[in-house]
Amino acid sequence: MKIVIIGGVAAGAKAAAKAKRELPDAEIDIYTDDTHVSYSACGIPYYIEGNFADYRTLLVRSPEEFASEGINVHLQHKVTKIIPETKQVLVHSLQGNNVFLVSYDKLVIATGARPIIPPIKNNCFKNIFTVRKIEDAINIRKKLEDSKRAVIIGGGYIGLEMLEAFVRNNIITTLIERGNYLMPVLDEDMSELVKEQLFSIHDEKFEIITGHTVTEFCGTEDGVTSVETENGQVFDTDLVVICTGVRPNVEIAVEAGIKLGITGAIKVNKRMETSIKDIYACGDCCEENFIVTNTPVWMPLGSNANKEGRCAAINATGGFDEFSGVLASAVTRCLRLTISMTGLTEKEAQKHGYETISAKVTKNDKVGYMPDANNITLKLIADKNTGKLLGGQAVGAGDSDKRINSLATALLGGLTVEEFVRNDLTYAPPFSPTIDPLLNAAQILRAKFNSK
Amino acid sequence: MKIVIIGGVAAGAKAAAKAKRELPDAEIDIYTDDTHVSYSACGIPYYIEGNFADYRTLLVRSPEEFASEGINVHLQHKVTKIIPETKQVLVHSLQGNNVFLVSYDKLVIATGARPIIPPIKNNCFKNIFTVRKIEDAINIRKKLEDSKRAVIIGGGYIGLEMLEAFVRNNIITTLIERGNYLMPVLDEDMSELVKEQLFSIHDEKFEIITGHTVTEFCGTEDGVTSVETENGQVFDTDLVVICTGVRPNVEIAVEAGIKLGITGAIKVNKRMETSIKDIYACGDCCEENFIVTNTPVWMPLGSNANKEGRCAAINATGGFDEFSGVLASAVTRCLRLTISMTGLTEKEAQKHGYETISAKVTKNDKVGYMPDANNITLKLIADKNTGKLLGGQAVGAGDSDKRINSLATALLGGLTVEEFVRNDLTYAPPFSPTIDPLLNAAQILRAKFNSK
Repeated sequence: MKIVIIGGVAAGAKAAAKAKRELPDAEIDIYTDDTHVSYSACGIPYYIEGNFADYRTLLVRSPEEFASEGINVHLQHKVTKIIPETKQVLVHSLQGNNVFLVSYDKLVIATGARPIIPPIKNNCFKNIFTVRKIEDAINIRKKLEDSKRAVIIGGGYIGLEMLEAFVRNNIITTLIERGNYLMPVLDEDMSELVKEQLFSIHDEKFEIITGHTVTEFCGTEDGVTSVETENGQVFDTDLVVICTGVRPNVEIAVEAGIKLGITGAIKVNKRMETSIKDIYACGDCCEENFIVTNTPVWMPLGSNANKEGRCAAINATGGFDEFSGVLASAVTRCLRLTISMTGLTEKEAQKHGYETISAKVTKNDKVGYMPDANNITLKLIADKNTGKLLGGQAVGAGDSDKRINSLATALLGGLTVEEFVRNDLTYAPPFSPTIDPLLNAAQILRAKFNSK
Repeated sequence: MKIVIIGGVAAGAKAAAKAKRELPDAEIDIYTDDTHVSYSACGIPYYIEGNFADYRTLLVRSPEEFASEGINVHLQHKVTKIIPETKQVLVHSLQGNNVFLVSYDKLVIATGARPIIPPIKNNCFKNIFTVRKIEDAINIRKKLEDSKRAVIIGGGYIGLEMLEAFVRNNIITTLIERGNYLMPVLDEDMSELVKEQLFSIHDEKFEIITGHTVTEFCGTEDGVTSVETENGQVFDTDLVVICTGVRPNVEIAVEAGIKLGITGAIKVNKRMETSIKDIYACGDCCEENFIVTNTPVWMPLGSNANKEGRCAAINATGGFDEFSGVLASAVTRCLRLTISMTGLTEKEAQKHGYETISAKVTKNDKVGYMPDANNITLKLIADKNTGKLLGGQAVGAGDSDKRINSLATALLGGLTVEEFVRNDLTYAPPFSPTIDPLLNAAQILRAKFNSK
């Protein structure tokens, strides 16, 4: 059995390791155009922030460790073509600059996603970065040493994580978001809260600008020196990080005739099989089933990649496993704020045709007399007709992400508000108020149902 | 409508406030033998620890505030008899030392629980305390000021919370637990872990002794000076705190002919009605329905008291509400350890006749490279025959109690291991590893099922 895996960051690395455990005799080869394999891309902002000194901490498993397990890792080897007819892939060695064909019995596509680069003039200056690979981590961290100012373009997850990283390094930072809202995956009222709460942190050196589009970079041969927005504002800077989202790497899959889903990522079934026999896909390049709606969604997150890689490996090696999908649970941190969510937002729920009822509470995360009590704002959304919970979001300095996980569990179980409000959550003053904010939000939501 | 409430700490205070909101014209009287009303008894260890300076922070609502809402609070008025035949209670004014009858239309018994005092010789010395009331808080805090050593008797929730409080005040503390295990509500393997992990904290001045019974106090007229155990060990001390559990205050209910349940606490239905018409009970004096097994359980916890007080008030004022019961979710903290649980332990599950399968994992609560990553050990228990989750426990320095809440939600939804393992929990390096320890434990549990 010859298993070829294209890509080796999270899904690909997991698929390789799991496949070897499932079928020790299998010949397993990872081909990646990257210079590194098996690393925590999600950890890059925390390396740049300075939580640990050595970028190698981000590496989960080295090519040597893979080799010792009998898995061959081919770094800087780009697969440029999949030939399903002959069950081969065409590999381009980036260093040797030669091209060769490799046969497979089973192929796992884990090509991931790549940053979207918006159309900004002069984007070839030095010190304009994206945040995706180990080189990005090393280069940004190095550039920070002689930098005083930074501009971040984009106010989603990575933009906010980079804001934290820069501010903690005493870099005067400007974050510019084209839309009117930070974290646009949230409902607008919750996005507004993110902005408000970040603005209220006066003791940190940063600036957030929403509703403005960066149109041009200026610089010298040493690198970028300023960015300009459409309305002519100019921001001097020593480096720029572009965090305007990612798109799935699906070109070679498309060329091979593999079907994409409505999200634009590779369509797979629950066994991670693509539309072509013996070809699996997992990780950021493929879409998922959204458990709440049973419709496709694209959630390029490390936790999903890990599970999908595992599932693809079990099936590719002759076993049986199903990945039932995602709840769109996610969390990020920016300075003292935690932002987390699961399920549908209210706007998404309405797009899906639900009539919604929602409730929002702002409460202490612990009993108010505990010295580290902090606020959290929780929003819960339910289906007006069935009472079924659809999703929730949390923003605040308090402990909120694990509360979102309780809600995720409720979504998994298909609980209604009426059922969820009976929950018995742990209570002690260092951990929550007598009635947990999550339960409190559910009580208010139930009251809205009863009075409707 | 005349509503009389006996007791006013958590359930009684909540019942009074809620009843007034539901039925503003009702005449509501709280009679309590206590000197305070409406306070956070759970917060007492945190006051003693020094998290806040003024004990009045523990008071939720003063008698004056109640009065301004039209609720009469009668402090130091002990109800000594319930007379259901004439719908009256006999009240003994502790200060005036007079006795009088009060009529009610609806009676709410919220008499709470009281500390169990084990049979130890000479327990009338000064500076031997229990931890229940505001006076206890004030007296212990005051005594700490001229104390160097303390002995805690009992290694359950309150014993461990007092250990933390004393150690943080630089008091050299000895905790003596009669049984072989701290936190005996846990499974023994998890209790063992509590002891191990507390023992491993070498930089704090405390000692834990299990398997020894205190038999005698020695002292002078200034107060206790030492405690002696059955095997003749003597521990010098400046104060003693007895934390050997509580029992429900049910005597006046029993005398009135109100039925107790098999737990020894007052039996109520889902509307908090006792066996006698127009008499409700709520809080630590009554038992609950255990949702997992649908059998009675006695869980004297503040969160339950609050919900039960609310439910009793709605029903007593002519509304309709049901309290469906508890999952036995609880949490406590001792120094750097968090201990939390929900549902059945493995030993309890087996007592209830379940054949169990359990899984236990020890993992970081966050990605290991984050500077504040800490270990947690999670144990999950499931029914071998149906796969249904039955309960779980968590011990460790890491963030674990909210993970237990996700499990509580799964118990509420009646989820099986196979269903729960599909959960999508939030992931980012500051919050969890790629695969959350809770999910990891569930995966291991599922694997045990598949290989059984």
